[in-house]
Amino acid sequence: MSKPLISALAQFAAATAGRNMTKAAYVAVTVGVLSMVLLSDKRAQEAHGWFNALLWTCLAYFVFEWLVRLRHMTQQGRLSLYMSSSAGLVDAIGALAVPVALLFGAEPKTAWLLSVLWVLKVVPGIPGLRQLRRVLVLESGPLVSVLVIFLMVVFLASVAEYFLERDVQPQTFGSVPAALWWAVVTLTTTGYGDVVPVTPLGRIVAAAVMISGLGVFGLWTGILATGFAAETRRDNFLKTWESVSKVPFFAALGPAAIADVTHMLRTMELPARTMIIRKGAQGDCMYFIAAGEVEVELPGKKVQLGEGAFFGEMALLGNNKRGANVSTTKVSRLLVLDLVDFRVLMARHPDLAETIDAEAKRRALENR
Amino acid sequence: MSKPLISALAQFAAATAGRNMTKAAYVAVTVGVLSMVLLSDKRAQEAHGWFNALLWTCLAYFVFEWLVRLRHMTQQGRLSLYMSSSAGLVDAIGALAVPVALLFGAEPKTAWLLSVLWVLKVVPGIPGLRQLRRVLVLESGPLVSVLVIFLMVVFLASVAEYFLERDVQPQTFGSVPAALWWAVVTLTTTGYGDVVPVTPLGRIVAAAVMISGLGVFGLWTGILATGFAAETRRDNFLKTWESVSKVPFFAALGPAAIADVTHMLRTMELPARTMIIRKGAQGDCMYFIAAGEVEVELPGKKVQLGEGAFFGEMALLGNNKRGANVSTTKVSRLLVLDLVDFRVLMARHPDLAETIDAEAKRRALENR
Amino acid sequence: MSKPLISALAQFAAATAGRNMTKAAYVAVTVGVLSMVLLSDKRAQEAHGWFNALLWTCLAYFVFEWLVRLRHMTQQGRLSLYMSSSAGLVDAIGALAVPVALLFGAEPKTAWLLSVLWVLKVVPGIPGLRQLRRVLVLESGPLVSVLVIFLMVVFLASVAEYFLERDVQPQTFGSVPAALWWAVVTLTTTGYGDVVPVTPLGRIVAAAVMISGLGVFGLWTGILATGFAAETRRDNFLKTWESVSKVPFFAALGPAAIADVTHMLRTMELPARTMIIRKGAQGDCMYFIAAGEVEVELPGKKVQLGEGAFFGEMALLGNNKRGANVSTTKVSRLLVLDLVDFRVLMARHPDLAETIDAEAKRRALENR
Amino acid sequence: MSKPLISALAQFAAATAGRNMTKAAYVAVTVGVLSMVLLSDKRAQEAHGWFNALLWTCLAYFVFEWLVRLRHMTQQGRLSLYMSSSAGLVDAIGALAVPVALLFGAEPKTAWLLSVLWVLKVVPGIPGLRQLRRVLVLESGPLVSVLVIFLMVVFLASVAEYFLERDVQPQTFGSVPAALWWAVVTLTTTGYGDVVPVTPLGRIVAAAVMISGLGVFGLWTGILATGFAAETRRDNFLKTWESVSKVPFFAALGPAAIADVTHMLRTMELPARTMIIRKGAQGDCMYFIAAGEVEVELPGKKVQLGEGAFFGEMALLGNNKRGANVSTTKVSRLLVLDLVDFRVLMARHPDLAETIDAEAKRRALENR
Repeated sequence: MSKPLISALAQFAAATAGRNMTKAAYVAVTVGVLSMVLLSDKRAQEAHGWFNALLWTCLAYFVFEWLVRLRHMTQQGRLSLYMSSSAGLVDAIGALAVPVALLFGAEPKTAWLLSVLWVLKVVPGIPGLRQLRRVLVLESGPLVSVLVIFLMVVFLASVAEYFLERDVQPQTFGSVPAALWWAVVTLTTTGYGDVVPVTPLGRIVAAAVMISGLGVFGLWTGILATGFAAETRRDNFLKTWESVSKVPFFAALGPAAIADVTHMLRTMELPARTMIIRKGAQGDCMYFIAAGEVEVELPGKKVQLGEGAFFGEMALLGNNKRGANVSTTKVSRLLVLDLVDFRVLMARHPDLAETIDAEAKRRALENR
Repeated sequence: MSKPLISALAQFAAATAGRNMTKAAYVAVTVGVLSMVLLSDKRAQEAHGWFNALLWTCLAYFVFEWLVRLRHMTQQGRLSLYMSSSAGLVDAIGALAVPVALLFGAEPKTAWLLSVLWVLKVVPGIPGLRQLRRVLVLESGPLVSVLVIFLMVVFLASVAEYFLERDVQPQTFGSVPAALWWAVVTLTTTGYGDVVPVTPLGRIVAAAVMISGLGVFGLWTGILATGFAAETRRDNFLKTWESVSKVPFFAALGPAAIADVTHMLRTMELPARTMIIRKGAQGDCMYFIAAGEVEVELPGKKVQLGEGAFFGEMALLGNNKRGANVSTTKVSRLLVLDLVDFRVLMARHPDLAETIDAEAKRRALENR
Repeated sequence: MSKPLISALAQFAAATAGRNMTKAAYVAVTVGVLSMVLLSDKRAQEAHGWFNALLWTCLAYFVFEWLVRLRHMTQQGRLSLYMSSSAGLVDAIGALAVPVALLFGAEPKTAWLLSVLWVLKVVPGIPGLRQLRRVLVLESGPLVSVLVIFLMVVFLASVAEYFLERDVQPQTFGSVPAALWWAVVTLTTTGYGDVVPVTPLGRIVAAAVMISGLGVFGLWTGILATGFAAETRRDNFLKTWESVSKVPFFAALGPAAIADVTHMLRTMELPARTMIIRKGAQGDCMYFIAAGEVEVELPGKKVQLGEGAFFGEMALLGNNKRGANVSTTKVSRLLVLDLVDFRVLMARHPDLAETIDAEAKRRALENR
Repeated sequence: MSKPLISALAQFAAATAGRNMTKAAYVAVTVGVLSMVLLSDKRAQEAHGWFNALLWTCLAYFVFEWLVRLRHMTQQGRLSLYMSSSAGLVDAIGALAVPVALLFGAEPKTAWLLSVLWVLKVVPGIPGLRQLRRVLVLESGPLVSVLVIFLMVVFLASVAEYFLERDVQPQTFGSVPAALWWAVVTLTTTGYGDVVPVTPLGRIVAAAVMISGLGVFGLWTGILATGFAAETRRDNFLKTWESVSKVPFFAALGPAAIADVTHMLRTMELPARTMIIRKGAQGDCMYFIAAGEVEVELPGKKVQLGEGAFFGEMALLGNNKRGANVSTTKVSRLLVLDLVDFRVLMARHPDLAETIDAEAKRRALENR
């Protein structure tokens, strides 16, 4: 191999080792899985050579990626940690499943089906997965209850239906497993129509099962909606907390005081292009940006502040004159800490008062 | 053309140019799309001449509308803005799609199918669309996660089902794309029944897919419900804000003070025909109408106040005697600002106190 | 007719005239509709005579009921009001639909089908109907938006599918109306399977439609859930309001003061058999029962208080010693009004203070 | 029988008598129901002897369990209570259903189908069942309304469809019961496809029914979601209440005071490994653990505190110096009671002040 190629590979390897999902990996997963899908289709038979080549390329990439990561983790002494992690497991499966199946004598077409496991590599890159998982964990009690009720209805309904229909339709309702299949298809309101009750009593039981299906659906959704709302509230609280603890003179406080501040904040939804602070006006509060963006008109330039930033904190330090115009650039959600509330806070937390005094003196010296 | 016809057309054109959707446009969309639908039906063959005529008329209207708007926008110097806006795009598509297809030699029947694109013209007129879009944007993270999970389940399930069923049902499960079709139909609980697993293992996999379908459904709905509730709260806050900032002596305040007022308001649900203010009674609060209607009994006449209006504000200016009877006419939601809270507010915002003093003096002079 | 029969009929008529739905009416609706259903079934042919007799009986009852009500309303001078009300309309339809159809020469079997309209008589008796209607009205904006989006997807998808499938399946996808049928069946995830796309592109469009179906479902549910939650909160507020305004010394206050009290109440969920008030203890709050039941141990007897009742109000009148033991009998939700909050209230509303003084003096005299 | 076997049986019986569901019962239910299911399947015919043996064993176990419990309850004098309870009923059905059916001459295969009733024994073991039941009870009003609306739509739609389709499809739409079957299958969006309207008008009615199905679904889910959220809030309040009433110096207070404390608590979500209390720092609040875990670094050992525990209560007793480092070990939700709020509480409840004084003196003596 020529030198530039090797160095390019090394760079590529370095980029691959560090992150969980590179763009190349996303492309490889998409191309690989689509090739596998089309390889099984007779209508695209003349292109099978191409799909095979693509599949081998993707496999090569995943093996390469896995080896690079193994080497990287060995160098960092985290090999065993990596191999037992879910990311490591998925990488190993992606690299080994197809070759191992081929080695053990599986038919190539069947072996390549295992390349569908490459989609698992996408899992760590899903943005809201942690949130979803927390909801499922939090609400696991009621969810399991609903699942158990679901299974009970399935078993009771299928035995009843088998009893009522077996003589009329021995072909489709000839055994309890067949009736179970019908019950699951019906209770989930899928309704293929391959197994359908025809006796009047059988249909009445089936109608009850369908209506129960709506109920199961509703409970399930209601539980998940409730869990999701709670999780969103919790997320917002943690985000506010993080914003608050970034303010220099709050950082030194304990969590109880920060929670106090977080609870004193008032939410304020503002339309776009609304003036929040007018230069020279009396300041009596500071602001945190929960969502949206504001623009500060400093002398000679305009500065944008985004989510998580704060401004106007000088008002809490005794400096009442606002120093610049500030206005929103889009619909924004601000959190406001009033001077009045802040003084209550200082009375409660004497260490905060000291920090503030020190900070105010430091700033006064700075601005002299 | 005769003069009255021309002037009528000019008037019509002027009405068309300004607004997004005129009544005529709604009629044209409805008539056009229905004609297109029925034109394709052999059972209504003898009326095809009529439908063709209607379609040409509608097309003529949309071309006319588009030209009028182009001219209007050119006059206002906003031509390029209009043409790149979604409304302009939709207008252009409505006017050009069918003619262009006919010009490029498409069969007339096929070309007229493009008239279905006229339904896009309805989009800007949908009342709650902005709200829906905000919910989708806000919750896009979790929604995309659910979509990715949906796709992963589809791919994994379809390969498993293809592997299990291909030998038994080579006709329907003969390729992975066919199995993918089955998986989507099943996971969305649509269940056409054209492709149905028959092997015991295949049915167990299918049952798992159906139950996952319920889960996906539930998550999706839960996310949207949460987002919708948050959006509704935000909307209400902005509406209250707007009502508050309309009160003359609040208008001059900064957003922090208005937010303060908004937070001090207490919600009060009242049944229809409830007396709120009795003439001559001691007033200690002012009211904003969030929903519903109230009736003020002025000497000689009755005045109705609707959503967004306010009354009783004199009580906050030191005038304690109520001047008129006020009662609800339907179930109403009022927001109450108490004199006590208002004084706290005045202590916090000295500029408000000054505005109030000036206003009170002005009114005293007026009423002398 | 013999005298006792006539007097019994008169009594029955009196009972019928006043209320909206008597038990007899519920029975008649159930029996009538079931008879109509079974009359159409050939398997129960030998009983058709019976069903006919039952139907005539039910019809006779509804005609009788209608005439009685017409007479009752004429006597009260509310005839035109009754006839234009929905209840009057439903009564008229129930009494006239079948006879009119028979008179106009419809086949008896077909005419009796109209007896299904009798189910409309149940509508005013549905318990939570008003609540559901309010939710639908409140959220009509977003719901209509979703419906319009639904229709747009249906039209666009059906034309696309017609274009893609008409050559392959001229039997099922031979016209746009047929494709529209497919689109509605698919977008609602019903999926009969009578019309199913088979071309690859057609299936990709169909998959997109199914996933949109999930989205429409989710939005719809999310909107309704949000509206329902808001409606429940509102209902609770009105119920609390009603409880509060029943307390003698609050009744004289204006709605602003009652709203004030309502907002000062703290909710308290209590397990069954919990002691709330101990006789002789210092009382510092009064209680409203929002749900559940409490038992007051008076000397010699035990008194149960249910939803909407209140107790312990003497504590607010200056009488600090509790006079009896009070404990919950089931899981209950109480609303607590603290003496401290009550005094804040008295400072705000001087007329309340006067009422309280008068009441306290009256009780002191009473208990002397 | 040998002695050790008898004593083992006795031990087993004792374990069975006390609890509702032993592990053995879960195993027996699973094995029994699966055997019954497979016994009906011809594909597993050679194993039918085994399944029969397993079924007899499970039945023997359930009879044994029932007899043991009957004896146990007789000894405790709660026999009639047990026999009329749902658990007793389910036990009796599990033990008697199959034998009674066999005695009454039912075919063995049919009699064994009754063993599906064994799944009912799982009901008392479902974790969130009480919560689900409370939601259904609380929201029963609106849920019944939706069910009634559902039934009304079913009846009206099926008669309309029967009228429109009976001449074209006498086979499938030949009677109103057949049309009712179609209506239920359609309104629940199950859509088997065995009965499908084909006339244009019939399809328009069907489309309306499907869209109503979405609406019914949405209402149902919305109601359940709302009820579930309220139930969760109530549960959290009761849990907090329980934590609070476990604190020694709160236990003596009445429910109003405990509710007061519960309302004064502020929720605080903390990431894992966050320091909450620093040894020697000024303490101004106490903490309750609502979820998660904290670690207290005592001299020489570390102590974990879990859900429901509390710490830092000395700060409320006048002891300002924190005695140990405390930090979270996982993401936790703490409830904070501030010293400031606590003093407000003491002013309101003089008996609390006395308790606190006594407790502080006792601790001072202890720590001397």
